Amino acid sequence: KTLNMAAETNGDEGANDEEDSILTILIATDCHLGYCDNDQIRGRDSLKTFEEILQLAQQREVDMILLGGDLFHDNKPSRKTLHGAMELLRQYCMGDRPCQMQILSDQSQHFPNTRGWGVNYEDPNYNIAMPVFSIHGNHDDPSGDGDLCALDFLSTANFINYFGKQTIVDDIKVSPILIQKGDAQVALYGLGNIRDERLHRTFVNKKVQMLKPTDEEGSWFNIFVLHQNRVKHGNTNYIPESFIPDFMDVVVWGHEHDSRIEMPGAEGHRPHILQPGSSVATSLSEGEALQKHVVVLSINAESQFKVEKLKLETVRPFIYQEVELNTIESLQSKKPDLVETHLAKLVAALIKQARKEFPKSDQLPLVRLKIEYTDFDSFNTQRFGQQFVGKVANPKDILIFYRKRKTVKAQVKQ
Amino acid sequence: KTLNMAAETNGDEGANDEEDSILTILIATDCHLGYCDNDQIRGRDSLKTFEEILQLAQQREVDMILLGGDLFHDNKPSRKTLHGAMELLRQYCMGDRPCQMQILSDQSQHFPNTRGWGVNYEDPNYNIAMPVFSIHGNHDDPSGDGDLCALDFLSTANFINYFGKQTIVDDIKVSPILIQKGDAQVALYGLGNIRDERLHRTFVNKKVQMLKPTDEEGSWFNIFVLHQNRVKHGNTNYIPESFIPDFMDVVVWGHEHDSRIEMPGAEGHRPHILQPGSSVATSLSEGEALQKHVVVLSINAESQFKVEKLKLETVRPFIYQEVELNTIESLQSKKPDLVETHLAKLVAALIKQARKEFPKSDQLPLVRLKIEYTDFDSFNTQRFGQQFVGKVANPKDILIFYRKRKTVKAQVKQ
Ligand SMILES: [Mn+2]
Ligand SMILES: [Mn+2]
Ligand SMILES: [Mn+2]
Ligand SMILES: [Mn+2]
Repeated sequence: KTLNMAAETNGDEGANDEEDSILTILIATDCHLGYCDNDQIRGRDSLKTFEEILQLAQQREVDMILLGGDLFHDNKPSRKTLHGAMELLRQYCMGDRPCQMQILSDQSQHFPNTRGWGVNYEDPNYNIAMPVFSIHGNHDDPSGDGDLCALDFLSTANFINYFGKQTIVDDIKVSPILIQKGDAQVALYGLGNIRDERLHRTFVNKKVQMLKPTDEEGSWFNIFVLHQNRVKHGNTNYIPESFIPDFMDVVVWGHEHDSRIEMPGAEGHRPHILQPGSSVATSLSEGEALQKHVVVLSINAESQFKVEKLKLETVRPFIYQEVELNTIESLQSKKPDLVETHLAKLVAALIKQARKEFPKSDQLPLVRLKIEYTDFDSFNTQRFGQQFVGKVANPKDILIFYRKRKTVKAQVKQ
Repeated sequence: KTLNMAAETNGDEGANDEEDSILTILIATDCHLGYCDNDQIRGRDSLKTFEEILQLAQQREVDMILLGGDLFHDNKPSRKTLHGAMELLRQYCMGDRPCQMQILSDQSQHFPNTRGWGVNYEDPNYNIAMPVFSIHGNHDDPSGDGDLCALDFLSTANFINYFGKQTIVDDIKVSPILIQKGDAQVALYGLGNIRDERLHRTFVNKKVQMLKPTDEEGSWFNIFVLHQNRVKHGNTNYIPESFIPDFMDVVVWGHEHDSRIEMPGAEGHRPHILQPGSSVATSLSEGEALQKHVVVLSINAESQFKVEKLKLETVRPFIYQEVELNTIESLQSKKPDLVETHLAKLVAALIKQARKEFPKSDQLPLVRLKIEYTDFDSFNTQRFGQQFVGKVANPKDILIFYRKRKTVKAQVKQ
C-alpha cells in the first residue's frame, strides 16, 4: 500500500476520472492559536501561520483539512484569538467550491452536538468550500459546565467538524468517519486527547476498540488521528507505537511539536506515522527549531497513498544552539566579563545566521543559546538581552543556563 | 404618521402587493443571556426566553429582529452561554425563507469588521432566514485588546448584524442603515451604549449628529435604537427624551428593564418610545415583576406604523409585594416570632397567587417581599427561606428589609 501513486500526467481523458477518485487531505496540528498573544512582537505569530495553512489548503484545493488537536493554546482563548480564528475560517473555508466527498457512516455518532447537525458542508444553509475536521488536544480539551471546548464554538458556527470526543475513557469505542470520494474510501478514526496514563491503561486493558466498517473491509484506507505523548515520559505516560492497531495505514500524531514526517519508501514500516509538528514554537527547545511543515496526504481508489511535505514559510525564524563553556579555550580564566562578551558575539552571529537561513523573512528571529556552565557563574540574562532588543523576538530569554548531571554509577531504584 | 394601518382583509389581489411593502420588525432587548447561569434553578431562564423570542419571530415571519443591547449579561459570557446563544441563532435564524429587504446605504460604515463583510443575509455562502440586528449594551460592550465584544463572535459567525458602534464618543455621527422592502423605507439609527454622562455631554455639546439620507427625505421612517438610562439618575446620568431628534418616528429604548410600550393613539406624542424591557428579571425589583414583552413593529409604504405587544410566556413567574410592618395591627406586640410567622404566611399566599396568575407555568416562581421594618428587628432571611426550598426559585433572598428615610425638611444641597 505504501507504493507511490503514478504521478505522471498522461494526455488521455481518463486522467480526470482518476483525479475524481483521489482524496486529498491537508494535515496540520498544534497550531496553538493565541500562543503568547499578549506579546507585542510574537502575539500574532500563531494566527499568521494558521492563515498560511488555510491558504495552502485553498491553493491545493484539497478535499479537507485534518487538524490533530491543540488548535488553541488556551483552554479559554482570549476574545481576540477566538475571534481571529473565526475570521480566518470564514474567509478561507466558506465558498462555492463543491465538496466531492461523501460521508457514508452515521454522522450522529461522530459530532458531539445535541441538535443533530452533521458534517458542515452538508448543511443546506451553508456553502463550505473546504471542510475542516479536528480532534481536541490537551490544550483545548472539553471541560467545565456543559463539557465544552473552544472547538464547540467553531463547530456550532459550522466552521469546523469537531470529532473524536470520548466521554467514557476506560472503555473506548472509536467509530470511524467513512469518507468516500469517487472510488477512494477512507475510514478516519479520531481520538481526542485523554490523559496519557489513563489512555495507556485503557489500551493495556484491551478496552480501546477500533470499530470496523461492516462492508468489504479490504477497500478502506484507515487513518488514525490522536493527540498523545509519543515520546516516552515514564513507563505509562505515553502511547507506544505498538498500541496502534495493525490495520491502520496512516497515523496522524498530534501533540508532539517536532515536525517528523515519515516519507513512504521501501523501508516504510506499518503503521506509517505522520507527525507534522506544531506550526508555532511554544517553547525554545531544539525540536521546535526544526523546519515546520504541514502534510498533504493523497489516497487513491486502490488505497495507495502519497505524502507531500509542505514547508511553512511564515514561521518566525528560530535558531537554537548549545554551548559548553568548559570547552571554550579563551574562557578558561573564568572572568565573568569574558563570558558575557563571548556569548554576545555568539548571539550576534546567530542573528546573522538567521538572516541567511531565512532571507525572505521580515520577522525578528528567535534565538536560544543553551549554556552548560559547570564551574562558571551565571549572570542576569534579562539584562544581557537588552542589547538585543529590536534584534531578536525574545530579548528576555535568549540565554538559558544548565548544568549537566554528573554520571551516577549506582542507579537509584525508582 | 401614528395612524393605524388598514388591517381589514379585502378579498382583492392587491392585498398581497400591500403586504410586500410592509416591513415587520420584532423588537426585543436586554435578554441578558447567561444571567445567573450557575444557578441550579434559574440557570437557563435567559436562554429559554430568548428561544421563545426567536420562535415568535419565526412564527410571525418578521423581516428582521432588532435587539436593543445587553444580549449577554456578562461581558465575557461563560462558554455554556455563548455556545447556547449560537445554537439558538443557528437553529432559528438560518434557513431558506428569502429576505425581502434590501439595504441601500453603504454597508461598510455600519458593521465593524475589517474584512468587508456586510449584512449577513447577503453573504452568498449563507442562507439567512431571519436577520438579527443588534447594538451593544453596557453589559456586552466592546473592550480590551482588539476592542471586541461577545457580539463580534456572533457577527463573525454571521449569525447577527452588529451595528451602532462608535469609536469616538465626543463627536458622534450616526449613519442610518437604509432598509427598503417594496415601497416601505426605514432608516435605522443605532447607537450602542456609551457611559451616560459622556453621551449626555456630547448631546449637550451638540456633537451627536444623526446623518440623514440625501434623497427625498420625507419617505423615510426613522427608527432610533439606543441603550441608555431613560430614568433620571442625577443631572447628567441619563438621556432626556428631549435630546432625541424630532424627526425620529420611533425610539427603541434598551437598558431600562421595565416593559413600558407606548401604544399609538390620538394622544401619542413624538417621538414614539418603545421600551420592551428585559426578557429576564435580573433584579427582584418592582419593575422587573411587570409582564414582559417583545414588540412587533410594522411599517408600510406610507410610513404608517403599527405596534403589537407580545407577552412572553416562558418568563419565570415573579410576584413582588411591599409590606410595612408598622401598619399591621397583629404585629404591634413586636414579638419576633409573630413577624416571621406572619411573613411566612404572606409568602405562602404569594406562591398561591403566582400559581393562579401563571396557570400554564411549570416553573417555581420568584417571590420578593420588600419589608419596611422601622421599630422592628430584622432576622436571618436565608434561614427563613429554607422552608420555601422547592417552592420558590429564590429561597435565599425572598425577603428584603429596608427603612423608609425620615422626611428631611431642610433639603441638603447636592
Ligand atoms: Mn501542542
Ligand atoms: Mn498537546
Ligand atoms: Mn440590561
Ligand atoms: Mn443595560
